[in-house]
Amino acid sequence: MAKHITNREQDYSQWYLDIVKEAKLADHSPVRGCMVIRPNGFALWENMKEALDSMFKETGHQNAYFPLFIPKSFLSKEAQHVEGFAKECAVVTHSRLKSVDGGVEVDPESRLDEELIVRPTSETIIWDSYRNWIQSYRDLPILINQWANVVRWEMRTRLFLRTMEFLWQEGHTAHASEKEAVEETLQMLNVYKTFAEDYMAMPVITGVKTASERFAGAVDTYCIEALMQDGKALQAGTSHFLGQNFAKAFDVKFQDKDGEHKYVWATSWGVSTRLIGGLIMTHSDDQGLVLPPKLAPTQVIIVPIYRNDEQRAEVLDYADPLINELRDFGVRVKIDDNDNTKPGFKFAQYEAEGVPLRVGIGPRDVKNQNLELARRDTLEKNIISRKGAAEHISSLLETIQNDLFESAKKRRDEMTAIVDDYETFKKEIEKGGFIYAHWDGTDETENKIKEETKATIRCIPFDNDLTETGKCIVTGKPSERRVLFAKAY
Amino acid sequence: MAKHITNREQDYSQWYLDIVKEAKLADHSPVRGCMVIRPNGFALWENMKEALDSMFKETGHQNAYFPLFIPKSFLSKEAQHVEGFAKECAVVTHSRLKSVDGGVEVDPESRLDEELIVRPTSETIIWDSYRNWIQSYRDLPILINQWANVVRWEMRTRLFLRTMEFLWQEGHTAHASEKEAVEETLQMLNVYKTFAEDYMAMPVITGVKTASERFAGAVDTYCIEALMQDGKALQAGTSHFLGQNFAKAFDVKFQDKDGEHKYVWATSWGVSTRLIGGLIMTHSDDQGLVLPPKLAPTQVIIVPIYRNDEQRAEVLDYADPLINELRDFGVRVKIDDNDNTKPGFKFAQYEAEGVPLRVGIGPRDVKNQNLELARRDTLEKNIISRKGAAEHISSLLETIQNDLFESAKKRRDEMTAIVDDYETFKKEIEKGGFIYAHWDGTDETENKIKEETKATIRCIPFDNDLTETGKCIVTGKPSERRVLFAKAY
Repeated sequence: MAKHITNREQDYSQWYLDIVKEAKLADHSPVRGCMVIRPNGFALWENMKEALDSMFKETGHQNAYFPLFIPKSFLSKEAQHVEGFAKECAVVTHSRLKSVDGGVEVDPESRLDEELIVRPTSETIIWDSYRNWIQSYRDLPILINQWANVVRWEMRTRLFLRTMEFLWQEGHTAHASEKEAVEETLQMLNVYKTFAEDYMAMPVITGVKTASERFAGAVDTYCIEALMQDGKALQAGTSHFLGQNFAKAFDVKFQDKDGEHKYVWATSWGVSTRLIGGLIMTHSDDQGLVLPPKLAPTQVIIVPIYRNDEQRAEVLDYADPLINELRDFGVRVKIDDNDNTKPGFKFAQYEAEGVPLRVGIGPRDVKNQNLELARRDTLEKNIISRKGAAEHISSLLETIQNDLFESAKKRRDEMTAIVDDYETFKKEIEKGGFIYAHWDGTDETENKIKEETKATIRCIPFDNDLTETGKCIVTGKPSERRVLFAKAY
Repeated sequence: MAKHITNREQDYSQWYLDIVKEAKLADHSPVRGCMVIRPNGFALWENMKEALDSMFKETGHQNAYFPLFIPKSFLSKEAQHVEGFAKECAVVTHSRLKSVDGGVEVDPESRLDEELIVRPTSETIIWDSYRNWIQSYRDLPILINQWANVVRWEMRTRLFLRTMEFLWQEGHTAHASEKEAVEETLQMLNVYKTFAEDYMAMPVITGVKTASERFAGAVDTYCIEALMQDGKALQAGTSHFLGQNFAKAFDVKFQDKDGEHKYVWATSWGVSTRLIGGLIMTHSDDQGLVLPPKLAPTQVIIVPIYRNDEQRAEVLDYADPLINELRDFGVRVKIDDNDNTKPGFKFAQYEAEGVPLRVGIGPRDVKNQNLELARRDTLEKNIISRKGAAEHISSLLETIQNDLFESAKKRRDEMTAIVDDYETFKKEIEKGGFIYAHWDGTDETENKIKEETKATIRCIPFDNDLTETGKCIVTGKPSERRVLFAKAY
């Protein structure tokens, strides 16, 4: 029934776009590279936001809001930062239009003295504020997060994965000591890992980026890396230890307990609507979107099946108390009693939209005191008894959540290779997937591999067993440990 | 103790800025006219958002997100709309910076073919999408809301009340009939009234704007108008019936049940961070901010009072179960056990921040099984028994909420005059406040009054008893009913 979705095998990119369209997550907009996030997509983002926001608050962070515009001169204050972002900036130069022959033109007299940059990220505007907020060690730490839109002028865009404007959160914290700032960086990386695995059911590898992949202005960039179904990696979140770089650029010092004036230590960390792209490419299939129950705006959809008004009344009466029971169990349930659409079309539509569980109720189910359950993830159908149905469904949603994680992890592990020579490496990279291999630690080797195979070092992973020393697959020079390679989005 | 707050009598504008600063709600930013919303201010906005968002969802609306940028040509498609916004547009003209002698400059080669406007409001970009979403009456109504930042290039700005960038929500709905669209417009006006009165404890007058005060592109603009302590009115929210203006500009038609193709009917409606300014100027006093309990991020602050470690332990042990009991009653409570600050300073700070209730606990209270309560609104102090304290406090918060509304309403009514001649009108307007007076319905008279007295027609109110006909205070011509005048923010 889901006719407009291309097979993954046939054309993975088109399949992705079809899912986004058929699940009504987003549209292309007339502004190149910008997207319209439709209600289905935004409801998903709201659930992600809510889960992340409580984790941020539980770890002591508060939300705030800083200006959309950054004076051009601010961006230049941190040398690496401006180098990283200068080539992808939306620049506001005028403040007025004027009417000309029925149309409008930019009024040249409204030219700004200093151009404003639409924020690509907010370190500079935020650290300018922190200078006013921080005098003493008593003012530290500052633990702030912002939910905002940002703009990076990307040339090649793809809905959710890479868009010119995107929604994200950016945490910006200030600390009295290096140790505390590093701990914060790693704590937030862990929050991201927990969110990715426990809510998105998307397994991730954590680690640190190589110098060439670092955030512009960071001392160290940590990341979570996920593997998509097509064997390409997705950087799903980053947490940066910024050292004293921004404190120095914006002259932010504090008087410490010892009376000395010292530069403040900083972190920043963010995840974005890109996560929705990751979610799609982790679980979905040729029938459409598959959503993990914890994030699904609708967890259970009830589709009543009837041939006449009498049956309709009977079936809806039967469904009504079930809805209330499910809500008592905290289940997000909806019933689709729209008469204009046939059940078969409804089935296909909710399959395309990724609703985790479908409950079909017809006159025979009423008679037998049954329900028909259809799992979106496995497409399995089951008849269950009406008695105890709410509890059964509530626990089945947990099972689905876990199953999705386990099957994503199994696939990821199956697509992960340990490789010891460059020839095998090249072959494996063509197939796709993660590769653990030895690297001599130099930019030159990293670049050579990238040029020859399009694979990048996703991270130098921690928390795994592959810590033995060895020889670089390209140069044969000594390597301290294996690093994680993949082609990436 | 609240030393940095100017008296209202002395300088109302300075008092306002002092409140914003001492309550740590917002800062001026280095970008002219933009503000930094600090954690205290943003927590307030989050509570407002949450309450409004559930009211929107209860009335069937869904959230979505549309692009920040609007192509210049879109703005021109609705003639009145572009006239209304052309003079206050932030215009993006370039997409890149380049390094020049250690600094950065806008790269002239990155000039855009068509300039982009940073949205001042989103009717145009949204109706361009609606064209793709609407074919048949089955696709209607579309009931969408967006939480977003918008930019209007204002010359004279004031924190929260008028800023270049502000946060708001904008609802945009599409309907098959005029009747349904008008009903939606009025429904949302009522949602705003309920929110203003029940949550903000800010009484408002509802009515319709005169032609000269209409939203650019609307057929009718409805509003809620509040009266601030200094006798100036604040337009606190607007709901627009847009007729078919945007449907015609963007060619959005639907096939009706009768098979005919018709233009779609539209509404839009919004409230913004300006509400925070209204909240401040409705309740606060010379000691600082006063917050209604329903919106206060912290409703109860517990300040322990002790002279030594033994007393400290005793007092904290006493406070601990109270905190849990209060939370069981749904009360947002915090304890400030920071040893670096003296209780007197804490009292002053929480007064400045507007926490509705302060609970002081010292060793004597522990001994006598008492608590000291201090109400922020009345500054009254009371000793209450520890037994039943949580229930007492919870119900006292409701009392405070109601009292704030009643006293704001009393003040508003005391500052409202019914006037029948222009001389009295001029004197009353100088004193400040709302004035109900007869008007002949012409732009000329409206403009004359505005020029001579700075008073504007806030709205043609509905729902009041002043519906008798009469004679215009300026021209003596017949008037159908009294309208509401005031000087406004």
